[in-house]
Amino acid sequence: MTQVIKPTPISGFPEFLPAQQIVFNRMLNIVRTTFERYGFSPIETPAVERKEILTSKGGNEKEIYALSRLAAEEGENAETDLALHFDLTVPLARYVALHKDKLVFPFRRYQIQKVWRGERAQAGRSREFYQCDIDVIGRGSVSILNDAEIPSIIYAIFREMGIGPFVIRINNRKILQGYFASLAVPSDRIADVIRIVDKLEKIGGAKVVAELVKTCELSEETANTILTFLGEAIDTDSVLAKLATIQKANDLLQTGVEELRVVIDGIRAFGVPEDYFKIDLTIARGLEYYTGTVYETQLRSHPEIGSICSGGRYDDLASFFTNEKLPGIGISIGLTRLISVLMEAGLIQVDSATTAQVLVTTMDESRKTDYLRIGALLREAGIATEVYLEKGRLGDQLKYANKKGFPFAVIAGGDEFDRHTVKLKNLVSGEEREIPLTELAAHLHAKG
Amino acid sequence: MTQVIKPTPISGFPEFLPAQQIVFNRMLNIVRTTFERYGFSPIETPAVERKEILTSKGGNEKEIYALSRLAAEEGENAETDLALHFDLTVPLARYVALHKDKLVFPFRRYQIQKVWRGERAQAGRSREFYQCDIDVIGRGSVSILNDAEIPSIIYAIFREMGIGPFVIRINNRKILQGYFASLAVPSDRIADVIRIVDKLEKIGGAKVVAELVKTCELSEETANTILTFLGEAIDTDSVLAKLATIQKANDLLQTGVEELRVVIDGIRAFGVPEDYFKIDLTIARGLEYYTGTVYETQLRSHPEIGSICSGGRYDDLASFFTNEKLPGIGISIGLTRLISVLMEAGLIQVDSATTAQVLVTTMDESRKTDYLRIGALLREAGIATEVYLEKGRLGDQLKYANKKGFPFAVIAGGDEFDRHTVKLKNLVSGEEREIPLTELAAHLHAKG
Repeated sequence: MTQVIKPTPISGFPEFLPAQQIVFNRMLNIVRTTFERYGFSPIETPAVERKEILTSKGGNEKEIYALSRLAAEEGENAETDLALHFDLTVPLARYVALHKDKLVFPFRRYQIQKVWRGERAQAGRSREFYQCDIDVIGRGSVSILNDAEIPSIIYAIFREMGIGPFVIRINNRKILQGYFASLAVPSDRIADVIRIVDKLEKIGGAKVVAELVKTCELSEETANTILTFLGEAIDTDSVLAKLATIQKANDLLQTGVEELRVVIDGIRAFGVPEDYFKIDLTIARGLEYYTGTVYETQLRSHPEIGSICSGGRYDDLASFFTNEKLPGIGISIGLTRLISVLMEAGLIQVDSATTAQVLVTTMDESRKTDYLRIGALLREAGIATEVYLEKGRLGDQLKYANKKGFPFAVIAGGDEFDRHTVKLKNLVSGEEREIPLTELAAHLHAKG
Repeated sequence: MTQVIKPTPISGFPEFLPAQQIVFNRMLNIVRTTFERYGFSPIETPAVERKEILTSKGGNEKEIYALSRLAAEEGENAETDLALHFDLTVPLARYVALHKDKLVFPFRRYQIQKVWRGERAQAGRSREFYQCDIDVIGRGSVSILNDAEIPSIIYAIFREMGIGPFVIRINNRKILQGYFASLAVPSDRIADVIRIVDKLEKIGGAKVVAELVKTCELSEETANTILTFLGEAIDTDSVLAKLATIQKANDLLQTGVEELRVVIDGIRAFGVPEDYFKIDLTIARGLEYYTGTVYETQLRSHPEIGSICSGGRYDDLASFFTNEKLPGIGISIGLTRLISVLMEAGLIQVDSATTAQVLVTTMDESRKTDYLRIGALLREAGIATEVYLEKGRLGDQLKYANKKGFPFAVIAGGDEFDRHTVKLKNLVSGEEREIPLTELAAHLHAKG
């Protein structure tokens, strides 16, 4: 026996069995078709970018995987200036800056690709996972109505996935910035205040107040005023009414409140039910990159998963790669993690290890050609079909069909061939019916 | 102005504009749905494997991209034991060896993923590209009928792509091995002879003979006999008849000829037209990995592209990772290169930069909500629709629609809203019709 290399999984690099992969692909397809239904065009960028592109924003070197050649040619350097992308936003910025004269603006693009993050392995953290992004990029400006359309897309996707009730939490960072300025928080502290406030759900009100006092040197009174402002769990219209009473405090706050009102009106016009969205003034998205509307999405039955879809509006997509101002708005769904968690929690059913509807069994070795023809007939009619090509007793073939999860098996022997019929066996109910070959496809179509 | 980093393309890492990406995705979808129609189940492996897995076969270190962390945490090593996969066969072998007790055999899987090859940049060579693979893996054995099914899948895919006539060239390596042995080529030279013979199309008969004489120390007479044996361009049945006359030379040759005959019979039973396949005894596939049936596929109008789909049968998929014998058969389509070449050659039309059917224009700023409702109505009916959300004159909106390649625009102003109608403009023909809003979706469905 040869010495073999033991194949072991690599921590942080998830891999599915076929039945799970089928579920994952079905969900991915819902995301893709919904993006397309809203008129987003696909793009795909290489998995790698130049290092200087990826590090342009700074601060994330530790999570970037760099590429080198395992063995260089003689006299060559194994080093490359390439690394794997860690998100789809930096590649989008580079893509738009590179191709902007060939693109049509507003540029509505979707992008579904794997990204890589070289973090230390942690429970639940993947180093390779899918992101599903949409962005609308304007040249100079892009309408606030896009901010309202995005939640209707989020709603359409997760509704179709059938993963239970969820809520899209909406805020506008201008409101936070304007409000904190109105409380006389020094302008160089506001980013810190937003960063701390963003942790409210995770660490609780008491700790937020303590941090605001300690880190931002706010008075306890101001910190508590902030907490009260953010924390009241009231319905959408009451929040808007409350904001209306204070919006005159300064221009930024006023702009933020007006934007939020237009977004909420738009979301309603797009037909998103009230239960599925709410204003949440504590949502800030850590990144300073965002400058207006921000979103997070939570499963009501599994809030512990955290946000399953987040994003927001930014003033300038590609400031590192072009001097042209490219504002935009976008969201990202981390699909690998979402689906993994939902499968573990039993919120998504994993059943069949095949995408085919029918297994044509082949009990009579001498009639293989006839079985192949039945398979061809069904496929021509658009029915995904496998013909059992190995030698084997019918019982073993049906066992194979059950293990893989085929809904139907076709069985035919000399009698059926003489009568130009087949037996169609429903592998879920066990029911078996003899059907003329000419009616088989129509019969299966009817069974859906 | 900020100093910007110039975004430049990276040689060998192709990237499409949206209209090209739409074409690519359409072709990818044909591949995927055909694989599924034949009952292949999807799997996806991580883009990275441990280095020792990827180098198990040896000899390919120079084309492997290794991963290291761009910046390690203090006290950590930036090196990792990971590298990017260079094909989908080694990952499949690792996957099957790792999960074999959870898989159902014969294991029919498809896998469509990017692979990376760190070669020096050459014209037409990509360092990142898609491979679309299917394999059928048996535990101990797998029927020769699978070898016949594969060409029917190749035929179905390229026929649906509509890229012109093509021919699947089929051979069996046992025939070559057996025949060369029958000519008293020493057994340790046979692999070399096959490697040289495989280059016939590229370098021509005279050079093949010269190389056979020089490298393999064959007599010129033997070399010429081989050339005659391989080179005759005759029809399938004549080749089979010719092979029948010499098959008794030795067991291996005899087995090869019998296998080839069963495969040809099967291909006919699967309904592949005669024009689309042929026996070609010069096809050998360089790799010793293949042990029986081998395939290459050529576009008749563009033979210079080389093989657009290749593969074959192997005795043992995963000998480096398990002692269990796992024979199989598979093919691979290098889709990125194929589509790029076909687009350049004008064999595939690239037209629209949107996947949406309809642009709902928004000439009356005060009726935005009504336009959003029209968009929602169409999407509910399954029609991919973009609502123009920016401010802009109708003329500019129609220009946008034309630039992106929408087939239809919906136009509505006060008059239409009063009459509960819209104007539907066919942007290809220029024709414009007023249609009741309630009939709009049905009307568009009818237009396909």
